[in-house]
Amino acid sequence: MALDDDWFTEICAESGSAFSLRVKEKLHQEQTRFQRIEIYETERFGTLMVIDGFIMLSDYDNFFYHEMMSHPVLFTHPDPQQVVIIGGGDCGTLREVLKHPEVKRVVQVEIDERVTRLSEQYFPELCEANDDPRAELLFSDGIRWVREADPASVDIIIVDSTDPLGPAEGLFTAAFYRDCFRVLGADGLIVHQSESPLIHQQLIRDMRCAMERAGFPQQLTINFPQPVYPSGWWSATLAGKRGKPTRLRKRACQNKTFPTRYYNYAIHLAAMAIPEFWREGTTESAVVNPVTL
Amino acid sequence: MALDDDWFTEICAESGSAFSLRVKEKLHQEQTRFQRIEIYETERFGTLMVIDGFIMLSDYDNFFYHEMMSHPVLFTHPDPQQVVIIGGGDCGTLREVLKHPEVKRVVQVEIDERVTRLSEQYFPELCEANDDPRAELLFSDGIRWVREADPASVDIIIVDSTDPLGPAEGLFTAAFYRDCFRVLGADGLIVHQSESPLIHQQLIRDMRCAMERAGFPQQLTINFPQPVYPSGWWSATLAGKRGKPTRLRKRACQNKTFPTRYYNYAIHLAAMAIPEFWREGTTESAVVNPVTL
Repeated sequence: MALDDDWFTEICAESGSAFSLRVKEKLHQEQTRFQRIEIYETERFGTLMVIDGFIMLSDYDNFFYHEMMSHPVLFTHPDPQQVVIIGGGDCGTLREVLKHPEVKRVVQVEIDERVTRLSEQYFPELCEANDDPRAELLFSDGIRWVREADPASVDIIIVDSTDPLGPAEGLFTAAFYRDCFRVLGADGLIVHQSESPLIHQQLIRDMRCAMERAGFPQQLTINFPQPVYPSGWWSATLAGKRGKPTRLRKRACQNKTFPTRYYNYAIHLAAMAIPEFWREGTTESAVVNPVTL
Repeated sequence: MALDDDWFTEICAESGSAFSLRVKEKLHQEQTRFQRIEIYETERFGTLMVIDGFIMLSDYDNFFYHEMMSHPVLFTHPDPQQVVIIGGGDCGTLREVLKHPEVKRVVQVEIDERVTRLSEQYFPELCEANDDPRAELLFSDGIRWVREADPASVDIIIVDSTDPLGPAEGLFTAAFYRDCFRVLGADGLIVHQSESPLIHQQLIRDMRCAMERAGFPQQLTINFPQPVYPSGWWSATLAGKRGKPTRLRKRACQNKTFPTRYYNYAIHLAAMAIPEFWREGTTESAVVNPVTL
């Protein structure tokens, strides 16, 4: 069946697949200094943001991604006070991070201010914590920000970036991760969105390798559903200065003081399970045993 | 971006979304007594089978579904010897079930013989166990077969059906589950594919309710990725005559004697994790504690 003009379609060339949403209206489009942003009103997925032709988020299902980019790493760190978000201009990750009462300060470094301004306008729910006094929104180059930041000044770095094309390309390199390593404190953790566990296995391997070259001794890739992204299945890769980031503040997690829509303690453990096909050619165990604090 | 004629597209009307695969060639199409079957060669997902316009399976990613429809229920039953598959004409589930050495007999009751004949031709890997002497392939109405089967004669019933439209509609009813209950032995288990955990929440609730009305005291819905199905995320619902089907032969599972591509012990536990949004309006705990045997 052919799709008529009432659909927005994103083609994933590397998997020969495409995902489409039926749209009611194009609400906005602009070419910023960095990229082309489009906003649509869809029939069933609510508002949709598209950057350079790639779906960034929808009202309907962004909770998977934003919760899984924030809560697992936050409950893994023993005392997360200072958090930096690189990218994340839609502010959905920021909102989730600020739900944690231990967090004293979150610096968000988004290169394109227009992403945030459009999110404030079209995704107000995601921006409802932007006025939190603990939040500082910077609009500049995250790579440079990390390069110039004080050593051991940050507990967690969340790299909430677009795909490794265009402005985000430099975020997927050992040079960037090395700067992150330096900026993180002794218990420091980094998490970076790492694309589809099925389609982008080589990218995940390369990212883990780059993190290792940067000094992070071990990595952990977690997986979760994300319907609007290619394959409907997505991942984030964590690494810690002290080793495998499988320490988990179980009691705090089980008694979390805020609502979520996907994440909970059981989902955190589930996200660490390693499919058989990931283990091909490695010695990795299928079972990740969390260390609970 | 519009898709040209080189794509097969399935629209999911209830979610206003569509999934497309780039095709190289249409290999076959026919109208059987029951449904319209099409076979395509895709660019990156291998061979594709479509029934009445809905994607059934692709070479690339059918392993998720077939493994998750078989191994969790097989490792949950304490001694699975007699297995019945209702539907499952592509034989992928049958192949997985026959990997279990405890299984003495599998009866597959597929209503449309053409599905199996085309699978033998176009998906030979899935049919490689069809000649196993333990397998019996029947081509008839699964509802009637279960209605006429001897009481307490089966350990596991796997309902590997299409969506609840057309020939499969009667499989999603309390009347059918009641017949299954009667045919199952005291430790008997049923599993039925239960659509998308995100898009089809009402269907899952209705199915669980129908199973309960049929006599199964508790149900368990497991979830797993399935890129070619709507939302890329799928589920199966298990129910047991003895109660919550969370008993798990841990040692047998951890030492399974056959290869899989997705399933393992950690994945089995992960599939049981209950997302927060499933718990809205229920008293269900997020954590399912498996009982290991």
